[in-house]
Amino acid sequence: MALRNCILSSARAIDSIFGAKVANFLQTRRLLYSCVLKVIQPAQVQVGSPRFLKEPSQVLTTGYSFSWRGLATETAERKDGQDLGKTNEEEPFIDVAWPNEAWSDITKEIFHQLNAGTENGNWKRHPGYLRTGERRLYSRNISEQGKGFEYAVFINKREQRATCVCQFGPYLEGPPSHVHGGAVATMLDALMGICVHHALEGYYLTANLNINYKNPVPLGSTAIFHAKVDRQEDRKGYLSAYVTSADGRTTLCDATSLFVKLSQEQMEKTKKYLPQDSHSDKVVKAEKSVV
Amino acid sequence: MALRNCILSSARAIDSIFGAKVANFLQTRRLLYSCVLKVIQPAQVQVGSPRFLKEPSQVLTTGYSFSWRGLATETAERKDGQDLGKTNEEEPFIDVAWPNEAWSDITKEIFHQLNAGTENGNWKRHPGYLRTGERRLYSRNISEQGKGFEYAVFINKREQRATCVCQFGPYLEGPPSHVHGGAVATMLDALMGICVHHALEGYYLTANLNINYKNPVPLGSTAIFHAKVDRQEDRKGYLSAYVTSADGRTTLCDATSLFVKLSQEQMEKTKKYLPQDSHSDKVVKAEKSVV
Repeated sequence: MALRNCILSSARAIDSIFGAKVANFLQTRRLLYSCVLKVIQPAQVQVGSPRFLKEPSQVLTTGYSFSWRGLATETAERKDGQDLGKTNEEEPFIDVAWPNEAWSDITKEIFHQLNAGTENGNWKRHPGYLRTGERRLYSRNISEQGKGFEYAVFINKREQRATCVCQFGPYLEGPPSHVHGGAVATMLDALMGICVHHALEGYYLTANLNINYKNPVPLGSTAIFHAKVDRQEDRKGYLSAYVTSADGRTTLCDATSLFVKLSQEQMEKTKKYLPQDSHSDKVVKAEKSVV
Repeated sequence: MALRNCILSSARAIDSIFGAKVANFLQTRRLLYSCVLKVIQPAQVQVGSPRFLKEPSQVLTTGYSFSWRGLATETAERKDGQDLGKTNEEEPFIDVAWPNEAWSDITKEIFHQLNAGTENGNWKRHPGYLRTGERRLYSRNISEQGKGFEYAVFINKREQRATCVCQFGPYLEGPPSHVHGGAVATMLDALMGICVHHALEGYYLTANLNINYKNPVPLGSTAIFHAKVDRQEDRKGYLSAYVTSADGRTTLCDATSLFVKLSQEQMEKTKKYLPQDSHSDKVVKAEKSVV
């Protein structure tokens, strides 16, 4: 346990250095990149790119090592009538479901409590990918830390449950100084979608989302989202969820949803939209590489 | 009618020049600003700022005139535990509910059809404000044209209805190449909120939002949202809505909602969150200035 925590803590420290370096590249060169988190050896971080850096630079640190691959792919610009359906074969992902500088103390505290639950293997942290290409996941589409959703999801597959800590940044305003109902709906949809995807087999889409808003959510505050699969009937997954304030004392929302699994025929039609190297594959790869 | 159309068409042309100028200021100086749209005299556009431009510059064009005021107010940076509840007294607004270069031909066409309905006075275009400060309206929080929601709302107060044309940009992805359920929920909540606000008296908050997702919405596509107040019971407003594809042939979603009016007591508590020069006042001012 202690060693694992030490590795994770070092990984987090390295991640911030790493993140800054990548951000610089993006700002100056507007390039896409993909990254692979890999513990190689202690006391060394390799930061390099085989394609646009001739010699990989090396940065010494007290922790463990990362390597990353840069891709000299220009970002695609949207044009009228252009088919946005096509996807880059090597779409870039960075896992941002980790505390960063914009997280408040309470958000970090809840994250670490939830993350401690992963130690016995019942709970698993769900990576949150920040894409840098033209198409972006709605809940991760603002690259500036702290401005939009800052969140991490944890999954308990056996109990068919998922929990999420979320800090709502200032770009999510609806009523003055409060979070937009659509932003809360987005997190509910995202969390229940992740929950059903992991708890049941197959690819599910939202068919119904029914939300009761019980208390307004202050802008800049942190909330805890809980979701679970209530029952499964053929291709239908029924879920429920609720949202509390960070201290758990105030219920902010509750919700139910119906997700419907794509049929084999629908999956065939959907294949053209899925990247060749799918999101799920990347998750597995990233997890395997952190020994 | 012809004169009115001519003025509006010129106003749109000027708006794009004006928008670019303002964007430059923002990029180079990171200043907030407020703008007032004003038809002064033909064949001249004044672009100037009494506070940070010593002499207003003048730009000649074929249309009508705008004046704007710049405010040398630094943007507020969010810090841990900082109260985001405070608002800038002179919060900046720009009306972006007009076609821009990122709008597809079909989006523009639907906009102009809906806008033609305003000529007899039954329908009214609802301004859409892009704020540039720390706090941003969730559905307008991406300043780069075409990446997020591009939309305009039209209201028929007498019939208690509202219609919206919306183009979903590439930053709104949920399932691969399709719009996130949360993004659709956000537009539904926004449209029904605007509808109830104009149709009934008072300040309303969402209490329930129930959405049936009937067909996936392709990323980059345009949809038409229709909302109406079904009935009012005391402080409760019951609304329904549906969403179709741009050609009106496919129903993408339908939804119902319950909005609850703030009581007098709640309004008193809420006052601290409302800007002194409220959003509604600004709307009235902007409309009055376009003769």
